[in-house]
Amino acid sequence: MSDAAFVPTTRTALRRHRERAQYDRDAVYAILDEGFICHAACAVDGTVWMIPTAYGRDGDHLLLHGAAANHVLKAAAAGAELTVTVTLIDGLVLARSTFHHSLNYRSVVVFGQAIEVTDPVEKAEALTVIVEHMLPGRTGDARSPTGRELASTRVLRLPLDEVSAKVRTGGPIDDAEDMGLPVWAGVLPLRPAAGPARPDDANRADVAVPAYLTQPDRWSGGP
Amino acid sequence: MSDAAFVPTTRTALRRHRERAQYDRDAVYAILDEGFICHAACAVDGTVWMIPTAYGRDGDHLLLHGAAANHVLKAAAAGAELTVTVTLIDGLVLARSTFHHSLNYRSVVVFGQAIEVTDPVEKAEALTVIVEHMLPGRTGDARSPTGRELASTRVLRLPLDEVSAKVRTGGPIDDAEDMGLPVWAGVLPLRPAAGPARPDDANRADVAVPAYLTQPDRWSGGP
Repeated sequence: MSDAAFVPTTRTALRRHRERAQYDRDAVYAILDEGFICHAACAVDGTVWMIPTAYGRDGDHLLLHGAAANHVLKAAAAGAELTVTVTLIDGLVLARSTFHHSLNYRSVVVFGQAIEVTDPVEKAEALTVIVEHMLPGRTGDARSPTGRELASTRVLRLPLDEVSAKVRTGGPIDDAEDMGLPVWAGVLPLRPAAGPARPDDANRADVAVPAYLTQPDRWSGGP
Repeated sequence: MSDAAFVPTTRTALRRHRERAQYDRDAVYAILDEGFICHAACAVDGTVWMIPTAYGRDGDHLLLHGAAANHVLKAAAAGAELTVTVTLIDGLVLARSTFHHSLNYRSVVVFGQAIEVTDPVEKAEALTVIVEHMLPGRTGDARSPTGRELASTRVLRLPLDEVSAKVRTGGPIDDAEDMGLPVWAGVLPLRPAAGPARPDDANRADVAVPAYLTQPDRWSGGP
């Protein structure tokens, strides 16, 4: 895995709010590792197609998967460039003026051409990374994919080369002349909350709730 | 506001998992009204540009706003078609097999050409809708935008014509031969959680925490 910072390109260099840009690889990867849903898009015949989808990270690659017939993944496998965004919303920023209202967020955008993974062993490994990314420990329990299941799944590796993060933190930044207004200002923190786990009605009586669901470290983060 | 269902087009008709498609306008609008962040994208010179951004809904239009220089909004104002996705993640679906793992989610995709709002009164009204969408009651407190602030903000109205929703709910759907496996199956519900509100250090001592932050109905929803 590279430890070099990302080099801003004409597409990833921020033109406004440059103080919010992050190109440090560890900082970017921390955001990718905390998120679990991305929005992946590509243009086909003049239309931008976009899907929300799970992902994983393997070193300097983002891993995507889906049904073989999925339009975005199919086009990307055929060479269409992908734009992938991961967005974490950390809070509403309430300023004294409507104009300075904002969001605290951490977002990553990736531009690149994906490479399709066709080797069944590599595909199975990629799916393990994606499922473990979402819920560490899960693939130790669930039945592994069969050859036929792997064949019906498309897996893409997207190189993490042209990448940037944009981060806003902290409280509202109001104009000096507004600071005396009788308006409550501050931040309403937001975070994803999980649980409690709901067992399937058909679960075997002898199967206990796994520790990764009762102690969900993956989901215990917060502001 | 129209009450007619959306008519599936070649772009919004689902080809797989057709049981997950929703074209009922009330159902689609309920998703748009519950979400507060969209991903908006358009293609410019062969690149798909995508931004996470706040939005509001005014009848049969989605309202977007941002800095006048924002690349996506600027291109959309100049005629580039927008693709906008709103995604609500409701849970991780843990099946007995890795292959049948899934997410419970509700997502909406909108294709269309936006119209720029240039009249200052209409712009101010649109910003009120967007802020109220995120936190009802807030615009009654915060200072309204000045003419200069409005001039530096771009506002777009995107007609809600070519729209579809995709919804997955419920537990895992495993293959019959996997039902006896000793694997815990079920759903880990996820939802956005809010609070507690953090006041700005410079808040006036005589300003109380607003009721919309201590009783945040906007943020009390859950699985």
